[in-house]
Amino acid sequence: MVMAVIRCDFAAETLELGTSMTVVLPEEGPTPPPVLYLLHGLSDDHSAWTRFTAIERYATDRGLAVVMPQVHRSFYANEAVGMRFWDFLSEELPATVDRFFKVSARREDTFVAGLSMGGYGAFKWALRQPHRFAAAASLSGALDLAYIQEFDLRPHIRGLVPRVFADRQVRGGDEDLLHLVKSVAPAELPRLFLRCGTEDVLLKQNERFVAAAQAAGVPVDAGFGPGEHVWQYWDDQIRNVLDWMLPKPV
Amino acid sequence: MVMAVIRCDFAAETLELGTSMTVVLPEEGPTPPPVLYLLHGLSDDHSAWTRFTAIERYATDRGLAVVMPQVHRSFYANEAVGMRFWDFLSEELPATVDRFFKVSARREDTFVAGLSMGGYGAFKWALRQPHRFAAAASLSGALDLAYIQEFDLRPHIRGLVPRVFADRQVRGGDEDLLHLVKSVAPAELPRLFLRCGTEDVLLKQNERFVAAAQAAGVPVDAGFGPGEHVWQYWDDQIRNVLDWMLPKPV
Amino acid sequence: MVMAVIRCDFAAETLELGTSMTVVLPEEGPTPPPVLYLLHGLSDDHSAWTRFTAIERYATDRGLAVVMPQVHRSFYANEAVGMRFWDFLSEELPATVDRFFKVSARREDTFVAGLSMGGYGAFKWALRQPHRFAAAASLSGALDLAYIQEFDLRPHIRGLVPRVFADRQVRGGDEDLLHLVKSVAPAELPRLFLRCGTEDVLLKQNERFVAAAQAAGVPVDAGFGPGEHVWQYWDDQIRNVLDWMLPKPV
Amino acid sequence: MVMAVIRCDFAAETLELGTSMTVVLPEEGPTPPPVLYLLHGLSDDHSAWTRFTAIERYATDRGLAVVMPQVHRSFYANEAVGMRFWDFLSEELPATVDRFFKVSARREDTFVAGLSMGGYGAFKWALRQPHRFAAAASLSGALDLAYIQEFDLRPHIRGLVPRVFADRQVRGGDEDLLHLVKSVAPAELPRLFLRCGTEDVLLKQNERFVAAAQAAGVPVDAGFGPGEHVWQYWDDQIRNVLDWMLPKPV
Repeated sequence: MVMAVIRCDFAAETLELGTSMTVVLPEEGPTPPPVLYLLHGLSDDHSAWTRFTAIERYATDRGLAVVMPQVHRSFYANEAVGMRFWDFLSEELPATVDRFFKVSARREDTFVAGLSMGGYGAFKWALRQPHRFAAAASLSGALDLAYIQEFDLRPHIRGLVPRVFADRQVRGGDEDLLHLVKSVAPAELPRLFLRCGTEDVLLKQNERFVAAAQAAGVPVDAGFGPGEHVWQYWDDQIRNVLDWMLPKPV
Repeated sequence: MVMAVIRCDFAAETLELGTSMTVVLPEEGPTPPPVLYLLHGLSDDHSAWTRFTAIERYATDRGLAVVMPQVHRSFYANEAVGMRFWDFLSEELPATVDRFFKVSARREDTFVAGLSMGGYGAFKWALRQPHRFAAAASLSGALDLAYIQEFDLRPHIRGLVPRVFADRQVRGGDEDLLHLVKSVAPAELPRLFLRCGTEDVLLKQNERFVAAAQAAGVPVDAGFGPGEHVWQYWDDQIRNVLDWMLPKPV
Repeated sequence: MVMAVIRCDFAAETLELGTSMTVVLPEEGPTPPPVLYLLHGLSDDHSAWTRFTAIERYATDRGLAVVMPQVHRSFYANEAVGMRFWDFLSEELPATVDRFFKVSARREDTFVAGLSMGGYGAFKWALRQPHRFAAAASLSGALDLAYIQEFDLRPHIRGLVPRVFADRQVRGGDEDLLHLVKSVAPAELPRLFLRCGTEDVLLKQNERFVAAAQAAGVPVDAGFGPGEHVWQYWDDQIRNVLDWMLPKPV
Repeated sequence: MVMAVIRCDFAAETLELGTSMTVVLPEEGPTPPPVLYLLHGLSDDHSAWTRFTAIERYATDRGLAVVMPQVHRSFYANEAVGMRFWDFLSEELPATVDRFFKVSARREDTFVAGLSMGGYGAFKWALRQPHRFAAAASLSGALDLAYIQEFDLRPHIRGLVPRVFADRQVRGGDEDLLHLVKSVAPAELPRLFLRCGTEDVLLKQNERFVAAAQAAGVPVDAGFGPGEHVWQYWDDQIRNVLDWMLPKPV
């Protein structure tokens, strides 16, 4: 046990609201350590990854810091009628982490990953601010947000669309990963990794993103295998993400 | 030191979101203990009362449990475009507390208080569900929500009005305390306590509520003295609230 | 996600010291829920099980509450020169849990398990207070404490022996599981479950306990397979423990 | 609200044990911020100062970080039969803070204070490692440990003497503040501040320390006024400590 786990309650200026993040820091290894921003899904908060997986343990051998923020049910967007979660994620959070903690700010040491809505968030962040990250990973990502806005009729989704988007059309804009992936020079992008279970309702969205990336000449390490939209799958797959992102030192 | 402090992360079904509450429980004294629901202000979360006051210490001598939930910037309402924070507060929270913790559910043992937006929340809860509470207190409460909706032009307020209310008119409805206070039989109400600083920008709202209560024949223990809209004032006044709610055992 | 996780800081009267426990509570299912006391190893604290395994997730489907206390490096004993951790564990902790939380106190709903030093603690508690538990499990348990006192020359062990035992001889006394297991009527005991990795330095201690239990006519569901003294093993095995203790509802 | 509060669970190598600290960090103001190490009393843990005072609020205006560790009932000593809490406090803790957090390590930005046993700890640390601190403060300090070892017959004290000291004589050694204060050059010392209530059972110990300091030519800002050995006193006095240590910016 050579990690520290931190629960940090702080005032988010962009949100005008108190919020929390969970942070894992290595007690050994080089300083400042590399850092993974790890994003939660729709109904979760900052505590989910540490509660439903053993992420701290998986990060230990790599000397990897992990930062887990929370953004409610916002799709990591500036909500049309609500709070500016994109500004919070992409500007305030890294600045706050950099102010408080001794973690590396170098691109080659900085990673992002997430599950479901957080997989969408991870790829959106990587595509919009490719200079920040060495690599990004999406697990079971809700990657086709235009489809969700237009066609996903499940009540828990319909309820959030007006708040997040109001009349703003996702398709073709900068919330639309299938569009974004065409708009950046492939050479500037971080490495991308994608996994989705073949029993996952989001499977087709993942296939569409992979196709769009391929059409745009953007390489993605994509894999589809048995799996549902459940924490057991993410607990298994996050280990693969880390193996891919940052091999254990020999 | 004979209290326990609890940080509870749980899934709020009405919000479809993970949330947190801070709970203080007495280790001594009669079981089940009386309980105070203590509500936060606009930019705060569940941790604010324990961080900016010594509420746990003040509750100790009384053997009083304190439950501190969080509702974002919702004015303890079901947001027009957002989440059902009123349902969460008034139904799910007490049911969850009752499921998890051994605290009294008797009316004579149940109290509610809050500051600013939370003072509004405390009185709204007491006026709408008077059968729950023996007493309710508002400190520096944002009590005239119709005024806020119609006339408060500060940017941090304008930004939340569309989310919380959309086109819903507060005045004369069940979010309007000046209306609510006329609509319940005074004999059914819990005891009411109100304090506001004379240097507080919300002073006039408090005076209007007191006038409306008086006109409706509802007694309020109201007091106005030197004070601003700051935590030092609430740290001082919450002790007066507890003295008034639940005298220390001799 | 239908569980709550609680961090509780409280004053332990028997220890004359503030301490913490982590508690997992089901939000759904029958009330009061069954409860597992889950004990940590030598260098860990109350947070270890939730950090290095996904215990909350494994408990979810069973509607099982989990209580994780901490006892420093005490071997769950009243230290000869130190604090009364046995009294804390066996009397104060259950009373505190019963005072605060709505969990079942019925024997058929009460379980104990632990790893390493905590495996020792779990079996000690079950053998000394068999009326409390329906079942007990030890993973990689430090089960032969007399051997440890007499022969374990590793510095991190030698350092604690004077504090915990001073001149008190373990062998043949009520800290000695190999003795205790002969001293109770097998019919009164909870069900026992034991797992230890064949690469674990504690393997022989586990074999000796199993032999002693067998000699005493006490049935133990014992299993030895590949595994070391590491969290990956306990994360795997605790799922087997739960399957054995409390089958998932169909 | 422009502070963050952090709960950090980490592995203390010198203790061979998981432990916790609470840390308050300013979100605004110069980086790295000045830092106060704030020490707890005999029966408390790292959470006490934040629970029983509003320390976070008092630190806000000064942009002061506050680090609150925990050392059980050790008198901040390497226990004769137990754990090396002095090594933990004086070496591992600052190194860990320096590894994790961006706080100043400059002498003029570093402070230490504590109450009761923690007042003793604060002065011991300042006298033994005067190069670390700009100033040190003791509130209601248990400052005459030789007296406590030799004459304090209260059961909760007698119980800990064997563990902490065994046969080691405090008087005249480096656990004895009345001795230590004579052994350092006054010019090398940080500024010293001392407060104790006139109704406090430790009053005479404080008077003896002040006399010893005076005899040694060490200036102490000492004050005695009405007050008992209770948190209300410390909540009041810690504000005086901060005013003296680090005046608020104009």
